[in-house]
Formats: sequence, structure tokens, C-alpha cells
Amino acid sequence: MIRFFLIFFLLLSFGNSTIRAEDGYRLWLRYEKIENAALRQAYLGRLSQIFMDGEGPILKTAAEELEAGLGTLLGKPIPATRVSGGTGGVIAGILGRSDVLGRLVSDEDARKITAEGFLLMSGPEHLIIAAKDARGVLYGAFHLMRLLQLRLPLDGLHIIENPKVKLRVLNHWDNLDRTVERGYAGFSIWNWHELPEYIGQQYIDYARANASIGINGAVVTNVNANALVFRPDYLEKAAALADVFRPYGIRIYLTARFSSPIELGGLPTADPLDPQVRQWWKNKADEIYRLIPDFGGFLVKANSEGQPGPREYGRSHAEGANMLADALAPHGGVLMWRAFVYSEEEPEDRAKQAYNEFVPLDGQFRENVLIQVKNGPIDFQPREPVHPLFGAMPQTPLMMEFQITKEYLGQGTHLVGLAKMYGEVLQTDTYARGKGSSVAKVVDGTLHGYQITGMAGVANIGTARNWTGHLFGQADWYAFGRLAWNPYLPAETIFKEWAELTFTHNPEAVATITDMLSSSYETCVNYMTPLGLHHIMAAGHHYGPGPWVSKMPRADWTSVYYHRADEEGLGFDRTETGSNALEQYTPDFRRQYADMDKCPHKFLLWFHHVPWGHVLSTGRTLWEELCLHYHQGAAEVGRLKKKWESIKEFIDKERYRQVSMHLEIQEKEARWWRDACLSYFRAFSEMEIPSGLEQPGHTLEYYRSLAYPYAPGIRPRW
Amino acid sequence: MIRFFLIFFLLLSFGNSTIRAEDGYRLWLRYEKIENAALRQAYLGRLSQIFMDGEGPILKTAAEELEAGLGTLLGKPIPATRVSGGTGGVIAGILGRSDVLGRLVSDEDARKITAEGFLLMSGPEHLIIAAKDARGVLYGAFHLMRLLQLRLPLDGLHIIENPKVKLRVLNHWDNLDRTVERGYAGFSIWNWHELPEYIGQQYIDYARANASIGINGAVVTNVNANALVFRPDYLEKAAALADVFRPYGIRIYLTARFSSPIELGGLPTADPLDPQVRQWWKNKADEIYRLIPDFGGFLVKANSEGQPGPREYGRSHAEGANMLADALAPHGGVLMWRAFVYSEEEPEDRAKQAYNEFVPLDGQFRENVLIQVKNGPIDFQPREPVHPLFGAMPQTPLMMEFQITKEYLGQGTHLVGLAKMYGEVLQTDTYARGKGSSVAKVVDGTLHGYQITGMAGVANIGTARNWTGHLFGQADWYAFGRLAWNPYLPAETIFKEWAELTFTHNPEAVATITDMLSSSYETCVNYMTPLGLHHIMAAGHHYGPGPWVSKMPRADWTSVYYHRADEEGLGFDRTETGSNALEQYTPDFRRQYADMDKCPHKFLLWFHHVPWGHVLSTGRTLWEELCLHYHQGAAEVGRLKKKWESIKEFIDKERYRQVSMHLEIQEKEARWWRDACLSYFRAFSEMEIPSGLEQPGHTLEYYRSLAYPYAPGIRPRW
Repeated sequence: MIRFFLIFFLLLSFGNSTIRAEDGYRLWLRYEKIENAALRQAYLGRLSQIFMDGEGPILKTAAEELEAGLGTLLGKPIPATRVSGGTGGVIAGILGRSDVLGRLVSDEDARKITAEGFLLMSGPEHLIIAAKDARGVLYGAFHLMRLLQLRLPLDGLHIIENPKVKLRVLNHWDNLDRTVERGYAGFSIWNWHELPEYIGQQYIDYARANASIGINGAVVTNVNANALVFRPDYLEKAAALADVFRPYGIRIYLTARFSSPIELGGLPTADPLDPQVRQWWKNKADEIYRLIPDFGGFLVKANSEGQPGPREYGRSHAEGANMLADALAPHGGVLMWRAFVYSEEEPEDRAKQAYNEFVPLDGQFRENVLIQVKNGPIDFQPREPVHPLFGAMPQTPLMMEFQITKEYLGQGTHLVGLAKMYGEVLQTDTYARGKGSSVAKVVDGTLHGYQITGMAGVANIGTARNWTGHLFGQADWYAFGRLAWNPYLPAETIFKEWAELTFTHNPEAVATITDMLSSSYETCVNYMTPLGLHHIMAAGHHYGPGPWVSKMPRADWTSVYYHRADEEGLGFDRTETGSNALEQYTPDFRRQYADMDKCPHKFLLWFHHVPWGHVLSTGRTLWEELCLHYHQGAAEVGRLKKKWESIKEFIDKERYRQVSMHLEIQEKEARWWRDACLSYFRAFSEMEIPSGLEQPGHTLEYYRSLAYPYAPGIRPRW
Repeated sequence: MIRFFLIFFLLLSFGNSTIRAEDGYRLWLRYEKIENAALRQAYLGRLSQIFMDGEGPILKTAAEELEAGLGTLLGKPIPATRVSGGTGGVIAGILGRSDVLGRLVSDEDARKITAEGFLLMSGPEHLIIAAKDARGVLYGAFHLMRLLQLRLPLDGLHIIENPKVKLRVLNHWDNLDRTVERGYAGFSIWNWHELPEYIGQQYIDYARANASIGINGAVVTNVNANALVFRPDYLEKAAALADVFRPYGIRIYLTARFSSPIELGGLPTADPLDPQVRQWWKNKADEIYRLIPDFGGFLVKANSEGQPGPREYGRSHAEGANMLADALAPHGGVLMWRAFVYSEEEPEDRAKQAYNEFVPLDGQFRENVLIQVKNGPIDFQPREPVHPLFGAMPQTPLMMEFQITKEYLGQGTHLVGLAKMYGEVLQTDTYARGKGSSVAKVVDGTLHGYQITGMAGVANIGTARNWTGHLFGQADWYAFGRLAWNPYLPAETIFKEWAELTFTHNPEAVATITDMLSSSYETCVNYMTPLGLHHIMAAGHHYGPGPWVSKMPRADWTSVYYHRADEEGLGFDRTETGSNALEQYTPDFRRQYADMDKCPHKFLLWFHHVPWGHVLSTGRTLWEELCLHYHQGAAEVGRLKKKWESIKEFIDKERYRQVSMHLEIQEKEARWWRDACLSYFRAFSEMEIPSGLEQPGHTLEYYRSLAYPYAPGIRPRW
């Protein structure tokens, strides 16, 4: 089955021999034949055959992947065998179960390998892939092929790679009708209606792509959950997906709607302390595990944005989570409980909510519970300071929730390399245990000694032929996987890898793509929400600017709640004179942001209400600085376009066109953001946009009048 | 651009050399290299180069198609030139504008060619494609390549083909949010949000596929229309699609919501006699034609299923249609007005409605109006007698509306070759002008001398990689195009062509696929609605059986309204003793169906309420016959599966798997239909399912309890 992925798109172009057409479906797994014959020969010296010393579905996958991938890269059949073929070739297997590996791998090396990790080691005529388990072998196989895809030498190779995070999970906000909440790449790849019989090729290729970057779990349903997925026929459908995922080392998870015992079970309550409710969940878990023995567990969004939860029964998040955890525990499942919660009352500062609700519960959760925390305290805004919970719950495993889909970062049409944002978050120091207490150390468990660790990414995958709609969205999926494996990887390393795997080996083109990705995040922040602005997008679909949004069911869903523009100035005072959300952070962290004149500009308006005429460290007033950032951001998109044009000759035609067309949209929309936001804020600052900068082409009323009822990523309206 | 379509899916399979992987994207345009060297040489004798004598976007397309297609088929570059290269090769152009064609084509031949038609004629070393216009050249080019794809000889070739129907149009019931009403192949291929900048490759390949079978128009929006498409930014998006379609000879059409002047124009009324309303439409048409000079026109569903229309203002359908026609007329646009209408009151027989409303209006419509009539009087049921309007409006062009998407024929998962149904309808004799007055003659205008003619097909196309979800759905798209070109083509001819173009040249396999397609329609009718039953599907999504449906906002939306099962018998009496809908047909037509004992069984229960114990011409009672048909239908699906398995060796792996998985679903669902319907009807007949036949596996209550809220093809529910 895997072979279908390894297809060539050969295009007969008369006149200039044979060139390749690409549509992006193959992602970073293109396995183009190595063009340099000497290099091919050098590789072949160690890789002419594959000896997979062991069996089982995942080892079988690893052998097939190596056979197909190496064969394509090296341009000749690389046979996989179950019998050692002399001393040469790839020798792969599980330590402790393979005699040959027992002889070839030192005890010291063996001790260093942990669960799912691997050793890659080259000998004169062989290459060893050794692991403690089958997944480790599979990851080692993909790593080896990545080395070849990057044309790196194997001489003297001695790599031990262990994943730093245990649960590396995609979250699909996919509904059962195939709409995707905040999905910008078409619709859900899960065709529930035709499961379990119809197994789309995309399911298989999805699993394979994830395995290649170390992702080992997939929550296939939306956190705004539907109890129907627990109906027996839907569980059979989920089991069919689990069967596809299993040989790739991926566990399936489902979102659990807290009120399922009422909606599906007919019970009068979903109170987590009610014995019938507890029994219903226990029975349901037993039923699921009968169908899916390696079922991963549940992800729950409770008491948030209208989702039911334990608070309705006067129970705590811990009581709610523990009930579900107890149902899963006998089977080894985990319960991921989201910290993204809302109280019924509108808070004076929504940024403080999760901390206030969860910190008191530290220590009350079962061992198989993780609390899943968004990177920042509001909601995946273009830039947020890290969530104050990180570092504040030493007794409770906190897992990171990143958004890969770009709800607030240009959705389906903007080129924005998210690894840069992920890295900024992960490298932030919480000072929870003194200097050096980075978010990465919270997430990988080293700071507090968590027994389970996890990182979730809200997927950007859909039915689009290139998977992510915007071709460069693939880089975000790739980056998420790489960072979940190793949260310390620099963004530039990831961008460079992705560029080379995805497009070309030309160093100039790789450098240009890396540069585009590296600069694009700051660019987007600048034309959308510079200087710490946040939550000023249009309502509902969140498409485009909406700083004027003021009428919503809750004040903390409006823009004016967050930017607080008035005649005086702009920004949300979260210091002692305001909401004092800053107090939720450690003193060393606070110290950086408490003083308006020392606060890094990137979070200035997040933490401070700054007078329009206030002179910043740049010598410019706030208003001037704001104008400058918006204009710089929009201008940078023009430069992104130029960079892309400069490498046209190295990119195949269809993918070049795809990205070019999206850059056109991005440029148009960057200017829209700039002009709409500055037109709006100008009404408060009563200052002019500095001369020399392009003035908005329309009135504020025009920008306010724009309506896009069918912008994607929301439930269709009728 | 077109070349992207001509890609090979080459799969390196070690062990058995190189085989091909297919995912269905290439449809019937696979252009596999001709394997027989002698045949290739024979073709090359006449096709070694292409001389396109003329210019313009469509001729350019024709030249590019020939260059790419012949090149791939013949395995060597076939250069296209604008300079005559001696006497050999393809010589293509427009008669009257090409000197060389003027010399080579006789006056007699030239006279026989009509608009969009073509002459294909072979000489000793050349092959002529001559037409009266550019579209004709393009169609001739595709026809020539079809001959090669079918491996037919070119010796002595002398073909003149003229389309018998002028407007050959797909209707997309696609909403602006990309959901597709009654769509079972994923979601809409039109990504309005990213237009006009982003031109997906699929748009181009869509246009190309349509052109290859003679389709020359596309209504890209749902008949349940949204006025938003007339907003200037949406018109720009539509114009971008028109730009893609134009070089393939395809005109774009939009659906016009009758109340647009209110919703978009802010007028207080949409009364078609109101001068402001008339001016609004005139201005809107002018605006559209400024952007899209070859805009096709509007399709309107008015006063039907909640859609607004002229009846709200006390105006007739003619007054409503004529207003829109007047706005379009100065630009050459046409107005297609659907006859699928509802009165506000529930009629005693919905089958009579359209006839009653439209026949009195015959002669009142403008010259650029067509009335679009569904094939039968109810609603695309698995089998319906022809619509009584055909033959009854001699002064008004009636265009046929077929459904290609299988709303009532197994939706996305059943193999049903619709050409068989289309053919049955088109060949039906209305006797409107005596014997031989077939529906085809009404539709192609020969019976009444219509000046414009048309055939519409409700598209089955979506984002599915193979376009139609079920691979065999491609055959229905193909058949629609072929029958719109020539309504007299036998279904078997079309099936055979499609099988060979799509899969293989192996005669046994082609015969098997043709046989599967030919028998599948009757099979489906048998397991769903045998003996003239109709409208007994589940409500809303129409997925699966629902003979028990009785509670709906209107009686004529229920199943019990149509099957009228009681202790006495089954069926809708539409003779003189009943609704007398039969009276709407001509006497010669009526004579076949009026007598219960002479009425062909396929329409028995459509026209008669038959006692359960009534003995039919087969010697079996109605109940026995009903049981037998349901069981035969379900059993036939098992045979379909076996036939498919018997040709496994001739089919590539992925497409084989796709069809096999769908056949599994079809078999399961055929049994579901059989058992649910017989369980239900048994409660009325109070007779047992004859022993020897498999008994239902569940109780009637079980079948009634099944609920599928997320079955595809409806607007998602929230």
C-alpha cells in the first residue's frame, strides 16, 4: 500500500526532454533519485540491502519504507530480507531481540536509547538502525532516509535520537459532516460516511507522513465534540482508521463530549460523581478498547465556549477529568483535558482565567491525565506571551497546544513559517525554577519531572490535494512534528530541512526559502497585530481585520475589549494599575514587562495602555511606531514575492504557481489589514499617518462594511 | 497548462518492472502510449505533425491538446505549427478562413457541417479536421484522439459529426461555502474564497474534460440560489472562472435568485413588472457582460421549495422569466427557467403540477427562454415515466434536466450506469405528433422546430481526487456529455467507449465493465423501487430507505403520499379512478398504462393501486413479485462484485480497490433497502416473504430507528 505514495509525476514535455510536474501531494517525502552517481555509489556501499531482524506490523512498515524509499533514492532495487545477508547493508531491529544487533551495538549506546528512540551507526559496509521498540526502528528508518534526501554523508555516522516528548499528537478539529472548524485546506480528510469499508489512500499517506516526523497520535474529532462518535457504528469506523494508523505507530484518540451519557446513554445527568455516569463511561471505554486495543484516550474541552462540563454539576475540572481517566486507566489510555476554559461571567481579563481555575487543582489529577494548555493565555493570537500556567503546575503534566492551522495568522492564504513562533514560545524562560526554566523544559518534563509529556498541534490538513491548501503550510506540519520530537530544534534548521526535502537541493534556493520562512512570522505580526496588539480580527470567521468589533454575546469576544483604544492611548493594562494579569507570572518574568518604558515592544500593548504620544525607545511616538510597523509588515510581503520570483528556475511549475497566487492574495490582504487597522486607530489617536507612508485607499466605513459570510473554517451558515 | 493533466503515474515496483498506479484523476483522458508498434506507425503516417490554420484561444487549445495528446499516444513529439508543413499530418482549421481546407474539403461536405460540428477525413498522408467555428475544431481534435484511444483505424475515415443539441450544460448545485447540495464526491471544486487570484489546477482540468465530451456550458452555482454571487467581488471571481473556461469553449452561467433586487439591490420588491426591478436586472446584466463578454445567462428556480419567484407578486412564470430574458437579450444571453415548481397548497398529485402551470403559458416566453424540465414529473426518482411536458409545449423550447449526481440512485457508493436510464427516457415515445415523437426529438428540437435546444445535467463532480467519488460516476459524466451531443447514442456504445478509455483495451474486461454498467441500473431500481414505486427514501438527506416517512412539513414530501400502501394494496392510482395524471399524456401514450393488467410492470405502481393478491402477467401475485424484485436486485449486486473480481488482473491496483470497497458498501445497502422495504410493506400485505428467500435480519423497528444525521449532500446541520 505504501508504494502508492512513492509515485512519480512524470511530465512529457516535448522540446526540453522530461521534467517533473508536482502538485504537492508528496509533501517532504519526495525521494527523488540522487542525481550524483558518485554519491549514489557511496550510499550503496552501505545500503545495498536491508536486513530487518524481527517481525510485527511496524517493523514490516519500516522494512517496506526502506525498500521503497532507498530503492527510489538510489535508483535500484534494495531488497529487504528477514535473513542476514552477510555483513553488508542496513541492519535493523530491536535491541534485546536481535542477536546481530546485540553483537554490533555497545552496551553504552544501548543504555542511551529510550522508548521510541534509535541509534543510527555506520560501519564500513553496513548501517545499523537499532531501537528499544518497533517505533524506534521506524523512526530510525525515516531519519536515515532524511539524511539521504539531504544528501548528507554516512561516513562515521553515530547518532542517538530519543524523542523528548512522549505524546506527539495532532488535533483535528474535524466535524462528522466533514466541515473543519478553522480548517483552510478544504474539508476533513475523514469520510466517516464511507467508513469502515472505504479506506481512502489519503488515510494511509497521512499516517505515513506523520510517522516520518515522529507524530504518534491523532485526535480525529473536533474538541467541540459530538457524542455520536461513541455510537457503535461510529466506533467501528474509528477502528478502521486505527487499523490504518497502527502499522505506522500512530494511536487514535477521540474527543469526548462531557454530556455523552445524557445524549447517547439516555441518563438524566452527566455528573462525574454519579455512579451511573461513571459506569457509562467505564462501559464505553471497555467497548472502545475491545474494538481498538491500542486506543490512545480522550481529549476533552469542557466548560468552554458552550461545551458541557463538570462545572454544571458543581464539580471541579479535576473531578471531571478523573472520572474519564479512571475509565481509561485499566486499558492504559490517557486523558487530555484542555485548560482553555471560560467562566459564565465575563472576566475583567480573560487572560487570567485558566490560571485561576487550574493552579488550585495542581496535584488533584490522576496519573494518566495531562492538562493541555495553549501557548498563550488568550487564543492563538499572532503573538502572545507564554501562558502563565507553564511552570505553575509542578505536580500536573502540562502539554503544549500549538495551532498549526492559521486561524489568526492568515488562514489559508498567507505564507507564515510557524516554527519561528513555536520556537519563540518554547525558548521563553518562565523562571519557574530560576533562570533557564524554559517552556520547553516544562513541556518535555525535565523541569518538574513529569511522568508523561505531550505536545498537541491543531492540524492544518484537509482535502486539498497538497494537504494544507497553502503549500508552505506543509512546513508548519513538518515543524510541529520535528519540535514535538525535539522542542530545542532551531526554527532555521527545520526550515532548511523542509525547503530541501520539499523543493530543491540548490543552496541558493534553499537559503531563499529558509529566509522567507524565517522572516515571515514577524512580517505577519507586523501587518496584523504589531507591538502586542491582539484579538482585533473580524468576528466569527476571524477572516481579516475587525478592530471595530464591539457587539458580541460576550465582551471578551470583542476587539475593543482587548485593544482598549481611546483618546488617551492604546493597549490593555495588565500591570498592577490594570488587571494585574502579570502577577500570574514569576517575579523574574514580570520584571521584564512591568515597566512601560522597558517592556519589549513586541508585548508593549499586551501589558500596557500606552498614550498615543508616548515616546518609545526608538525615539518615535507610539502612533508613529504603530504606523511604521503596519507599513513595514505590508511592505515585507512585497519582498517575499520578490524572493520567490528570484528562485523560479529552481521550482517546478505548478508548485511555483500555487505559491505565487497565494502571495498575491497575501499582499492584498496585508494592505487591507494595515489600512483598516490604521484607519480605525486614527480615529482615536487623531493623528495623521506620517507622510511618506501610503495612505489608506478607502474610508474607515468602507473597511467596516466589508462582509465575508462564506469565509472558510466556520460551520456553514444558513 | 493543459500538460499538467497529461501526467503519468509511474510506480516503481521492484520485482515486476514498472507498472502504473492510477488514482482516477485523469478520467477518460489517459492517453496511454499505443503499445502496438505497427499501429503506432500506421497512425504516424497521417499524424506526424499538426498544422493549425488559424488562431484564437480555442484553436490554440486544440493545437495544444493535439500536440500533447498525440505525442503521448504515439510516444514521440508531434509538433504543432502555424505553417503548412507540406501535405502530410493533421490539417485543422475553420472552413472559409483556411485556403488549404478550402481546397481539400468538398462543398458538399462543407454544407453538412453545422455550428460546433466537424469533419474528420483522412487522406493518404494527412488527416483533416474542418469545422465552421473554433469549437468544432476543438471537438474534432478530441474526437480524433478518442479514435486513437480506442485504437480504431483511420483509413478511409470520413466522419461528419454535428451536435444535435445546442446548449450542453452542467448544473452545479454548489453553494458559495463549498457545500454541494446532493453532492457525494466531497465538496465544491469552486473555492470562491480564493478566487479570483487562485486558479486551481482542477478548474483547468475540469474545463478540459468537459470540452473533450462536447459540454459547452457550466452553471457554477446552486439552483437554490444566493444573491451574493451578484456582488461585484463575486462577479470578479466568476469572471476568473470564465477566463479558465473560455479557451475550452465553455460558457459560464449563474443561477439568479429572483429576490436579488431586494437582497442585494435594496429595492422594496422583486415584482417583475416593476420598472425599478427591471432596471436593476438590466444594470446587473450589463455589469456582468462588461466582466464576462461571453456570459451564458441565468438559470432560475422560482416558486419552488421556498425559492422566491413571480407568483409572490401575482405574476406568471412567463412574466418572471421574460423580465430576466429581456435583461440578457441585448448581450445574447439565454434564460433557463426550471419547470420544477410547487404551489403553496399541497396538490392531490404533485406529478401534475408542472404541466398544469406551464402548458397554459406556451407561446408566452421570449425567444431566449428555455424551460428546463426534469426527466420525470416527480424528482429524479430511480425510475419515472417521462415528464408529461415533453411534447406538450410546441412553442416553447424545453430542455432536458437529467441528474448525474445520484441523489436517489445510491448516492456516492453505488455502481449504477445512468446512461441506461437517460436512454430509456430519451427513447420514450410521447406520440405528441404521432408515433416516433420521442423525447429525444423534443429535446433536439426536431419535433417542434425549436430554435434553441438544451440538455442540462446536475453534476456529480467534487473535490474527490477521482472527481466523482465513486470511480464509475465518471461514466455518468461521460455519458451525459455524449448524449447531450447525440441523444440517440445507445447506452452500450457509451459504456464500451468509457470502459476502454478509462481502464483497458482487453476485450474481455471491456465487455465485463460494459455488462456491469448495462445491468446495474435495473439492479438498483429492483433493490430500491421496483415495479414503479417511487419516493420512498429517507427524508432530508435521502440516504437509505424510508417507506415509513409520514411526518413532514408537506404531505407531498412524505413516502406514504407516494406508495399509498394499505391493507388493500400498493401504488398510486393515477388513472381516471385516481388523480388522473395520466390524462396529461397523449392518448397513444396513455393507452399503454391505463389498464392495470396491461401496464408494463416497471410503471405498474406509478399508475395503479394494485391489490396485494392481484395476479400479474407473470403468474405471481403483486406481493410475490415485489419480494422477487427486491431479492433479485440485492442478489445482482453480488454478481456485480463477482464480475469485477473476474477482471482484477486487467485493472490497476488502486482503482480496483476503490471500486471493490464501494461494491462492498453497495451490497450491504442493497440488502438494507430490500429488508427495510419488505419489512415495512409486509405490515400492510400481511403476507410472508416467500420461503426460499432470505428473511430480514432485523425488525421493522430496527430499520426505522437507523439515523444518519451526517449523510452527505445536505447542508450541514447544527
